[in-house]
Amino acid sequence: MDANQKKTTLRMIPYGIYVLTVDDGKGGVSAATVNWVTQTAFAPPLIAVAVKADSGAYALVKSVRKFALNMLGKDGKGAAFTFFKPAVVEGNKISGMSFHKGEASGAPILDDAPASVECVVKTIVEEGDHHVVIAEVVDAHLVKAPE
Amino acid sequence: MDANQKKTTLRMIPYGIYVLTVDDGKGGVSAATVNWVTQTAFAPPLIAVAVKADSGAYALVKSVRKFALNMLGKDGKGAAFTFFKPAVVEGNKISGMSFHKGEASGAPILDDAPASVECVVKTIVEEGDHHVVIAEVVDAHLVKAPE
Repeated sequence: MDANQKKTTLRMIPYGIYVLTVDDGKGGVSAATVNWVTQTAFAPPLIAVAVKADSGAYALVKSVRKFALNMLGKDGKGAAFTFFKPAVVEGNKISGMSFHKGEASGAPILDDAPASVECVVKTIVEEGDHHVVIAEVVDAHLVKAPE
Repeated sequence: MDANQKKTTLRMIPYGIYVLTVDDGKGGVSAATVNWVTQTAFAPPLIAVAVKADSGAYALVKSVRKFALNMLGKDGKGAAFTFFKPAVVEGNKISGMSFHKGEASGAPILDDAPASVECVVKTIVEEGDHHVVIAEVVDAHLVKAPE
């Protein structure tokens, strides 16, 4: 397989920018920027999220089995960079960004995210350098509809 | 969960237009338009594809465990509509579109597709009205790079 053809071809599959958040129920949270997400079913509403297998966020999702996926709009790239580093919670801010707790998942919902979903993990597929978390969307929050 | 918020929020997750093809090795092929695809790992290169669980293409992917994913560009929407109906092979055409056989998968590669990947199934997650096929990309064909 030609490495350049592989790279260019795989980049033709659309991807997004999201911040996945998890709360450990003991005062700790984890957050990670993720790019590889797709809806996978209408009924029940399911999504697949690929999460770096050696990340703290992945370990916590795997044990807590609930998370929030914060969708960042075009203006949200700064937030994506913020969560390349481990998340730090101070008061009602996570790495300097204000949030509230999602009722369904307990996970941080970023106040600046135009939309987010709260999810319960159904299955995790442990293949590759990122593992695939298949989860049911149990709540959806739309703050600002896309233009 | 508010149904409209759910719908609008889930639509913010990008999706594409692809034609998934499978060859049964006995002269029969199946093809289906799919929209829900994401890369899930770099090493090995993996993708997740959600395929309608009651479709002929899904049944064949599940048994053959190899397929091709033809990526349609902006001009390829006509092809997507073509494969909403069961595929018919006549000579070197599938439902009227010319194709050649992929060497890695045996599956039809549409000659008009700007790019395609050939995949070997690793795992299938049977959750929801569409099941999630996790597959390794074993070959990639780039005909026309995106502008």
